Amino acid sequence: MQVLGEMLIGRESVRGGQAEMRALNPSTNAPIAPVFGAGGAAEVDRACRLAAAAFDSYSRITPQLRARFLDSIAENLEGLGDTLVTRCVAETGLPAERVSGEIAWTAGQLRMFARVVVRGLWRSATIDSADPNRQPLPRVDLRMQKVPLGPVVVFGASNFPILYSVAGGDTASALASGCPVVAKAHPSHLGTSELVGRAIQKAVADNGLHEGVFSLIIGDGNPIGEALVDHPETKAVAFTGSEAGGMALVRRGLMRAQPIPVFAEMTSANPHFVLPAALAARADTFATRFVEQMVASVGQMCLTPGIILAVDGPGFDALRSTLRKTLADTPSATMLARNIHANFERGVERLRCSTGVTEFARGAERAGVLNGRAYLFEVDAKAVLDDIQLLDEVFGPSAILVHCQSVDEMLAVAGAMRGQLSTVVHLEPADHELAHRLLPLVEAKTGRIVINAFSNMVEISDAQVHGGPFPATSDPRFTAVGSTAIDRFLRPVAYQNFPHELLPPALRDDNPLGLWRLRDDVPGSA
Amino acid sequence: MQVLGEMLIGRESVRGGQAEMRALNPSTNAPIAPVFGAGGAAEVDRACRLAAAAFDSYSRITPQLRARFLDSIAENLEGLGDTLVTRCVAETGLPAERVSGEIAWTAGQLRMFARVVVRGLWRSATIDSADPNRQPLPRVDLRMQKVPLGPVVVFGASNFPILYSVAGGDTASALASGCPVVAKAHPSHLGTSELVGRAIQKAVADNGLHEGVFSLIIGDGNPIGEALVDHPETKAVAFTGSEAGGMALVRRGLMRAQPIPVFAEMTSANPHFVLPAALAARADTFATRFVEQMVASVGQMCLTPGIILAVDGPGFDALRSTLRKTLADTPSATMLARNIHANFERGVERLRCSTGVTEFARGAERAGVLNGRAYLFEVDAKAVLDDIQLLDEVFGPSAILVHCQSVDEMLAVAGAMRGQLSTVVHLEPADHELAHRLLPLVEAKTGRIVINAFSNMVEISDAQVHGGPFPATSDPRFTAVGSTAIDRFLRPVAYQNFPHELLPPALRDDNPLGLWRLRDDVPGSA
Repeated sequence: MQVLGEMLIGRESVRGGQAEMRALNPSTNAPIAPVFGAGGAAEVDRACRLAAAAFDSYSRITPQLRARFLDSIAENLEGLGDTLVTRCVAETGLPAERVSGEIAWTAGQLRMFARVVVRGLWRSATIDSADPNRQPLPRVDLRMQKVPLGPVVVFGASNFPILYSVAGGDTASALASGCPVVAKAHPSHLGTSELVGRAIQKAVADNGLHEGVFSLIIGDGNPIGEALVDHPETKAVAFTGSEAGGMALVRRGLMRAQPIPVFAEMTSANPHFVLPAALAARADTFATRFVEQMVASVGQMCLTPGIILAVDGPGFDALRSTLRKTLADTPSATMLARNIHANFERGVERLRCSTGVTEFARGAERAGVLNGRAYLFEVDAKAVLDDIQLLDEVFGPSAILVHCQSVDEMLAVAGAMRGQLSTVVHLEPADHELAHRLLPLVEAKTGRIVINAFSNMVEISDAQVHGGPFPATSDPRFTAVGSTAIDRFLRPVAYQNFPHELLPPALRDDNPLGLWRLRDDVPGSA
Repeated sequence: MQVLGEMLIGRESVRGGQAEMRALNPSTNAPIAPVFGAGGAAEVDRACRLAAAAFDSYSRITPQLRARFLDSIAENLEGLGDTLVTRCVAETGLPAERVSGEIAWTAGQLRMFARVVVRGLWRSATIDSADPNRQPLPRVDLRMQKVPLGPVVVFGASNFPILYSVAGGDTASALASGCPVVAKAHPSHLGTSELVGRAIQKAVADNGLHEGVFSLIIGDGNPIGEALVDHPETKAVAFTGSEAGGMALVRRGLMRAQPIPVFAEMTSANPHFVLPAALAARADTFATRFVEQMVASVGQMCLTPGIILAVDGPGFDALRSTLRKTLADTPSATMLARNIHANFERGVERLRCSTGVTEFARGAERAGVLNGRAYLFEVDAKAVLDDIQLLDEVFGPSAILVHCQSVDEMLAVAGAMRGQLSTVVHLEPADHELAHRLLPLVEAKTGRIVINAFSNMVEISDAQVHGGPFPATSDPRFTAVGSTAIDRFLRPVAYQNFPHELLPPALRDDNPLGLWRLRDDVPGSA
């Protein structure tokens, strides 16, 4: 398979005529062939109308066929092999093993959603049987299931060009729910997007689905994204990226004549609380591991650890000195794109100029123009309590140590913290009493709490939550990863007094889909 | 218990000093004693801070205690007896039996949520066990449950002064989820709100809960509502009322520094499709029942039927003439409030002046100045397809008959319809083939589909959906009635690698709460 520089609109491959766009190698800033043709409102309109035309049939195919379709995407993605790895490495500067790993995880995620579709818990199938003898009024026959919302627009992330992009969690969960997808190619990995898009397009055709089930739009700047959110056939949006970009789309979705939900996963600094006994016991090990994790992928992960909170006392000096020493040996590395690098430099500069913040360690001098050099800052808890935004994420290899004078100060910062995707607590049994006070504060601010580990491995499973209060996401009631990510694209419908032959399969008496259902207050497979 | 004209802030009863407000008798326009003191930003601030102070302890009490608290509210509400009925009748003009009925349903709803709390399905408790031997990476121990969002502000509806107001579905489901509630008294039933508020306040005290679990704010105009939505401690809002009012709050919630979800249940015209065989078989019966339902409660219910769609053919003339005849005999009746009456008159006037719309029947001359006289309009499907907003709800006893020339025209209108809380299809077995084409179109536009009945009885149960696509609600993924109404106020949190003693009770290995859980892909009580 070859990169042609084209959009995918239903079964067609279309060259956009609005502008030319080029993929860039972030290490050299050199363009990578071919030139891409950017689309505009006309292509958006075609893709969204096709998605709407596909919706009814796609939403009603059997769970088995929908699962097979997701499995086919996984297979086609894996089938891209070295073509995809090579292209993605060129466009992002990520190491080949990282890209291969992402492909494997993405395929695994698609296969998980295939199983989720068939298991069908997402339908929340519920039956309240009629009771003609109830007093004072008879009870009607009422049944409920969840159905898909309609066409979903997906804006992938730059930092996980496979796992959070065209065939990533948003697309996989939307397709699993029964929603067609119109994806926008991220400008920092255009060729990768096209290749992955073709893998999906082929799966649509091979499974005999309506061509509108998937389209991929290429376009330049904000107008193309706005056209996608504004299109009347768009019924929901999923976005991964910056707080400014995400909230602009969320608000735009709500300003439409017909408002739609836009889920945005945005920013998180992923604090690590090191409780006193843990600090005394293993400041060194923690510091070494922390630096390793904060510079992994040049700090460009949603779950990169960015904050350490510790109370002055045994281990604090060791923590600081090991952090400094370990960071000094850390080489700089290529960042994903020019704008990301520029934002990183600005973020570091902002911290450096903030009252009460000191830079106390830095990584090795940068080797390339787009390389990210690592930084560690330190700040007193008091300063943080005056301005909690000192703890905002700096996307890249930067972290900040919050120096607390007492346990109460640490608890105060925990209570003032903004929303996070993940929060980590390092503790020993002697810290449990403190943990009982800290954990409720942490729970109120985070989507996932991790004990004695790092949070940047995300298990893709039923119990996963990759979400959290603002600004981690735009709506804390949902997750972007894990099997319940599908809930973002579903709505409940009740069916009252239906003749049996008109009932949807999920709600028929004989349970032909073999679903787990809530029937007359009893959960089970009846 | 007596109406004092005061707000309830935690355990206190507070007279607002911002302005004076008076309850009015809608039949006579005469003020009802006492004078109410309106509060302002200071009272909002106190109530919201108290709610925030109550949140942690209230969210962690046992399910049994939370259930007892909800049961106590039900009991106290019933205990208000004639005091409440008399006051509510005076403020709303609703018949006493209707008010007594609402009290019974509201108490029943509170008791249902007490059972829902203990059953605990809303927690979505999920356990993915660790697997240290998994390749290529070990699997971590990951567990998930849903937790409450935090303080919820409730704006009740004017049309159900008990069932959808201070102790209505929004308050019951928010309290069930573990969220404290700050309710705003609706200006059209201030005394009713105070009495019901005191019933809740007493239940808070009797069960030894933090006083901040419930407050009731009285205030004048938009600023008080805006202060409630803007308060930084408010974490979610539930609103029942007009589209303009609802969307203003939804947008305001999103414009905050920390955006919050605002769920608004707004407007629905509840269409009735009468399919050809049903029309031929029972046009008369349908027409008589339809008129009965459209004028019940002077048409002031969210589920008042407002649209009839039928294809010209056998039964159509009978439908039209029976509608006309039945409506002519219908007396006018007092509407809930002056502004509701004025909006109704404006809505009727708007339809009367719309191209293609004809008034073809009216009820008896109105007897009182605030009485609503009933109207039936007719319009060709073609005109509706040109301007779908001709079918927008006119809140009050007004309905419109859509005259379709063919089945295809009827299907086209179904496809163009705006979102609805409920849609009814009247059919005979001979209509099933057509129903198979119609129902998917209806499903895409409505929260509840009813066959061969009227939709304005809402069973409060597990399978109920009182929601739907915009403009029925601001977010089709949720329902305002039924046990899953609680989902609006919950968010998932994942717990990774937790020592057993730090795990929340819902996720401990021995399942001390006896919950249904999803454990290693198997639903059950393990």
